[in-house]
Amino acid sequence: MISVSASAQRDYKLWLQYNSVTNASIAKEYKDNLKGIVVLGNSETIKIAEKELKTGFQEMLAVIPEFKSEIKRENNLIAGSQSSLNAEIKRRLQSDFDKINNEGFIIKSISFQNKKQIIITGKNDVAVLYGVFNFLRILQTNKSVKNLNIADSPKTNIRILNHWDNLDRTVERGYAGFSLWNWQKLPDFIDQRYIDYARANASIGINGTVLTNVNANALILTPQYLEKVEALANAFRPYGIKVYLTARFSAPIEIGKLKTADPKDPEVINWWKNKSAEIYKRIPDFGGFLVKANSEGQPGPQNYGRDHVDGANMLADAVAPFNGIVMWRAFVYSEHDANDRAKQAYAEFQPYDGKFKENVIVQVKNGAIDFQPREPFHPLFGAMPKTPLMMEFQITQEYLGFSTHLVFLPKLFQEVLESDTYQKGKGSTVAKVVDGTLFQNKITGIAGVANIGNDLNWTGHPFAQANWYGFGRLAWNPYLDSEVIADEWLRSTFSNDENFIKPVKNIMIKSREAVVNYMTPLGLHHIMDTGHHYGPGPWVSNLSRPEWNPTYYHKADKNGIGFDRSKSGTNAVSQYAPEVAKLFDNLETCPEKDLLWFHHVSWDYKLKNGQTLWNGLALKYQEGVNQVENMQNVWKKTEKYIDAERFHEVEMLLEIQYKEAKWWRDACLLYFQQFSGKELPAEVEKPIQTLEYFKSLKFPFAPGNG
Amino acid sequence: MISVSASAQRDYKLWLQYNSVTNASIAKEYKDNLKGIVVLGNSETIKIAEKELKTGFQEMLAVIPEFKSEIKRENNLIAGSQSSLNAEIKRRLQSDFDKINNEGFIIKSISFQNKKQIIITGKNDVAVLYGVFNFLRILQTNKSVKNLNIADSPKTNIRILNHWDNLDRTVERGYAGFSLWNWQKLPDFIDQRYIDYARANASIGINGTVLTNVNANALILTPQYLEKVEALANAFRPYGIKVYLTARFSAPIEIGKLKTADPKDPEVINWWKNKSAEIYKRIPDFGGFLVKANSEGQPGPQNYGRDHVDGANMLADAVAPFNGIVMWRAFVYSEHDANDRAKQAYAEFQPYDGKFKENVIVQVKNGAIDFQPREPFHPLFGAMPKTPLMMEFQITQEYLGFSTHLVFLPKLFQEVLESDTYQKGKGSTVAKVVDGTLFQNKITGIAGVANIGNDLNWTGHPFAQANWYGFGRLAWNPYLDSEVIADEWLRSTFSNDENFIKPVKNIMIKSREAVVNYMTPLGLHHIMDTGHHYGPGPWVSNLSRPEWNPTYYHKADKNGIGFDRSKSGTNAVSQYAPEVAKLFDNLETCPEKDLLWFHHVSWDYKLKNGQTLWNGLALKYQEGVNQVENMQNVWKKTEKYIDAERFHEVEMLLEIQYKEAKWWRDACLLYFQQFSGKELPAEVEKPIQTLEYFKSLKFPFAPGNG
Repeated sequence: MISVSASAQRDYKLWLQYNSVTNASIAKEYKDNLKGIVVLGNSETIKIAEKELKTGFQEMLAVIPEFKSEIKRENNLIAGSQSSLNAEIKRRLQSDFDKINNEGFIIKSISFQNKKQIIITGKNDVAVLYGVFNFLRILQTNKSVKNLNIADSPKTNIRILNHWDNLDRTVERGYAGFSLWNWQKLPDFIDQRYIDYARANASIGINGTVLTNVNANALILTPQYLEKVEALANAFRPYGIKVYLTARFSAPIEIGKLKTADPKDPEVINWWKNKSAEIYKRIPDFGGFLVKANSEGQPGPQNYGRDHVDGANMLADAVAPFNGIVMWRAFVYSEHDANDRAKQAYAEFQPYDGKFKENVIVQVKNGAIDFQPREPFHPLFGAMPKTPLMMEFQITQEYLGFSTHLVFLPKLFQEVLESDTYQKGKGSTVAKVVDGTLFQNKITGIAGVANIGNDLNWTGHPFAQANWYGFGRLAWNPYLDSEVIADEWLRSTFSNDENFIKPVKNIMIKSREAVVNYMTPLGLHHIMDTGHHYGPGPWVSNLSRPEWNPTYYHKADKNGIGFDRSKSGTNAVSQYAPEVAKLFDNLETCPEKDLLWFHHVSWDYKLKNGQTLWNGLALKYQEGVNQVENMQNVWKKTEKYIDAERFHEVEMLLEIQYKEAKWWRDACLLYFQQFSGKELPAEVEKPIQTLEYFKSLKFPFAPGNG
Repeated sequence: MISVSASAQRDYKLWLQYNSVTNASIAKEYKDNLKGIVVLGNSETIKIAEKELKTGFQEMLAVIPEFKSEIKRENNLIAGSQSSLNAEIKRRLQSDFDKINNEGFIIKSISFQNKKQIIITGKNDVAVLYGVFNFLRILQTNKSVKNLNIADSPKTNIRILNHWDNLDRTVERGYAGFSLWNWQKLPDFIDQRYIDYARANASIGINGTVLTNVNANALILTPQYLEKVEALANAFRPYGIKVYLTARFSAPIEIGKLKTADPKDPEVINWWKNKSAEIYKRIPDFGGFLVKANSEGQPGPQNYGRDHVDGANMLADAVAPFNGIVMWRAFVYSEHDANDRAKQAYAEFQPYDGKFKENVIVQVKNGAIDFQPREPFHPLFGAMPKTPLMMEFQITQEYLGFSTHLVFLPKLFQEVLESDTYQKGKGSTVAKVVDGTLFQNKITGIAGVANIGNDLNWTGHPFAQANWYGFGRLAWNPYLDSEVIADEWLRSTFSNDENFIKPVKNIMIKSREAVVNYMTPLGLHHIMDTGHHYGPGPWVSNLSRPEWNPTYYHKADKNGIGFDRSKSGTNAVSQYAPEVAKLFDNLETCPEKDLLWFHHVSWDYKLKNGQTLWNGLALKYQEGVNQVENMQNVWKKTEKYIDAERFHEVEMLLEIQYKEAKWWRDACLLYFQQFSGKELPAEVEKPIQTLEYFKSLKFPFAPGNG
């Protein structure tokens, strides 16, 4: 029964809907095999696992499970950490324990004293909780619980959300309301949302959160705020989530009353040591610092003639005694270097390889520019064998339609992770750099810029929840297929009905290519309107920094369009391994999806499908629009499988996406047409508005414009 | 069954919990008397009424009611407007219809063709919806449905929320998150919250909403935003809620490209006429404008040498053809008049009596300063017999502890409404001014500055929902007793268990006096910290405008404390009717609750209880703290009657309130002690911190600081 008022609340439950299992034979199998539950231990974490099992069973199977204190009879679910297990069971699982790491879990059907049981275990309680959530996912996706034999470990150490949340609760690039962190009511008021946030993250294996914006405010490091951070850390701890903060490099001046923030200055070094000690006194498992330094106006070591290594290592020394880490961002580009922004992070950071302390990890965006609908993988991946590199994905859709466009990002993430850097020969994928297997890094990690806000449904768009979910799953296992992720998510969030799953999974999988097509096909990039990045703005050319202008990126002229990064251009291709550089450098071998990223190409250039570049470009824009129209048609048929509210929400949002896809197509083609001087192909719908109209659009209060 | 994740969601349902009726005999009575439902009509509004009845019956009685298309057998609930009723029933109810106004409703048990039926009706569909919500309140509060005979009408025409919401979604004086209005996603995305907001308002009879801040932005009047306003108006219309906007007086310049906003300028007059026509073309039932002019920096007619009458009448003419109204605020005070801010609104507006067009209503705050924990009623009430005056209450707790203090405001509202102005002899209460019965005004209204934001629970504090609820109930009937309101609200929101109701109602009723005691006892006012108004700041004396300084209001010195507004002082008392002026003017007859509002009183002055003023003041502060402690003790015993989450939320919030009550007590007493030079009485706890500590506290990101 869905009531009037309660209906707004399904979204809130994310992928933990625990819908009633409607398939009778599956429900029977579950009930037959899960007659009792034995939970071992009594830590906060174990109590959470127990409560979760109780909720899951009640909601999915409408049974209140029998919780037992010891193992009698058969068909029990037994959950507990390795040390809490019966000695015989422990011995029997030894080879499984050998397979998993400290955060891994085992879910296994065993016969113990001639009785069938299912064991969920791991080396500590949080690992058990991961196992419990994974077991509940088996039920949510209606998979069999017979003969279970799972031993699964996360492939990275740091699976972390980056919240670009400001202390006034605005969220830079946030499109789902405002920050979850209600600093005014902290530390004394622990909002239920903090708990529900931690629970959702734990359910997908996320184990860290950076609470504050990389464009940082030093106040977060004052006692007034650290008391509040401590309260959040306490709330998250039982869910296995560590808290991290962004460190404003000039904090010693701003809140420490020092005259300098020079990382070689003894007083500065001491200030950070004391500050770290102060933090760890409150939060013994504090994760460490994330730093954006000397980038887009943020202060950093270069203000004092020092370099990124000096800055990072100074902070690393401060947190090292407490096992803290420093995540130092490689997202840098200089306004004084007009040559090619795409080259600058590599140029600056690659020479530092091997110079960072061992508790520093360099955080690199997936591409060399900035979270575009499509970018070739960042050339730093694989190019710093002696330095742990952390992937930075953007889950929030800064350049991908805010929270009104359905874009399934795991498809994008997968494309990046599967990219072959060739830095250690064929098969040197980005995933292997990130999970540390290529160069045997000690610390590994994946960060995602969160798309979470205080909207009732957390992420603004119901399908944006899938991007949070998918990020977590890929951080756990960078080799997961995005189709598997979509499948799991749909079943856990909506329905197990194949008539719903198949078509909707299909539109999810295609949605990423659709947004590329209607925004930036064939390797175009960063032609969004200025500042807020909402909607098209290929004409913008008046910003103070040249590399903030869309015209800098598309370079359209009478001769053609695209950024020449080949050897004859900026030679950005040379930052890749020779095999890759050669591929990108050659117009013939360069993948067409990256064509205009690497080449300035004549309007008459013949694409592989025989179309001229102009026609092909126009047809791609039209294809993007058509793909959204198809998404709408598919969605319309799902009404009978899901609740009315989410059906209607997505319907409204797809209508916006369709409108905006046409806006992108028309504005970009009218603008580029000025240079190509050519007619649109017949298959492309004629624009209804003029270019002047599109140029006149202003969005003074677009959200997320930090 | 309360699940882990769903638990965060009870708050969202406000006073429409529709809890299962657990008293078996009452449930039986309901089921016996409500066997079928006949809903007449098929407007959007009637469909909403039908859905609401369905939801209510399902959730409270666990029955899916039988909806019938015609009246057969007995014990039906028949809901429909007058015109939809069977002729015989209509005739039988004629005397009831004569008793109600256009928005009133009838709920009546009748015998029709020898069959018992219950009728819910009114003169239009929205009135029927009001009747339905009132009927459901009868069930929610477990009252009998036998022999019903209710004919109830709202006593005011305009029952309206004022949202001080900015276009960037910050909310001036908002403590419950951010604005509900997601302008970026409007008009195409209609958030379920808009519907749920309208529903909650309709359930208490609120019929209007001003979407935007009185500190206005002209952009709301541009087509880009009017399209969004139209979408909200469409969403609210079936719930009987009209949309209003704030009109920035300088809009003709800012968005109209005119050189002036002079209300006598023909181009300006024409601009507003055209703008009004443009708005009404989109929104035929647009309510009108709310204007803050020449107040706290807002532009207004005085910028052009005109007065408030000129400004209001010009706008009134623009909306008159469409039956629109102008709500013109009397909240004005000049920085150039250092004498007494409390006198200025009266001094400026009273002479305008009778000069406003008939579709202008002057909106007056309940007191002459600004929404303090306690103020004497505003002297304008009763003083403008030829002008409709609208009450402006503040539901959001700007000066009353933000959203962490439990303060039941209907008690404050009632005190104001019951105040006797004596302007037409004894019994000339503020309520009679506001509902128009004293001077037979054509339009009447009550406005409440909303405390609603996008927090999951709407209002930040679970008990702040009671202030929204109580405001609506008092706007409908300004003579309602706040205890009745508390009773209704508690039953509809939490439980009908007397063991819960009695003690909790008691702390609600006492909560307003508690906040007065620990913040501003004995007539003290406006001694909050500067800007954000969070916490005590009696020492602040350095603001640019004298009347923004707390020292201006308390005037503490060696001789005593208080603002002398008697005849020998600023003579503000003379703005009241002679009977009231005399009462306030005389130190002996002035109510002690207003003592320091009207008099500068010696520290040694003997209060009625025999204490010196200093000791009495200190004891009041302590009493406030003790009252909060008592609230905590009462609350702790309620755990078994309500859900764990809301119990725990309120428990945490009361702990903050207790902390802050002590902060207020200690900071104020330490500060005032500098002047009195006296010891604290033994009953008063000694401060743990120093005055310097309290003065050093800074809250750079306090919410709501517009």
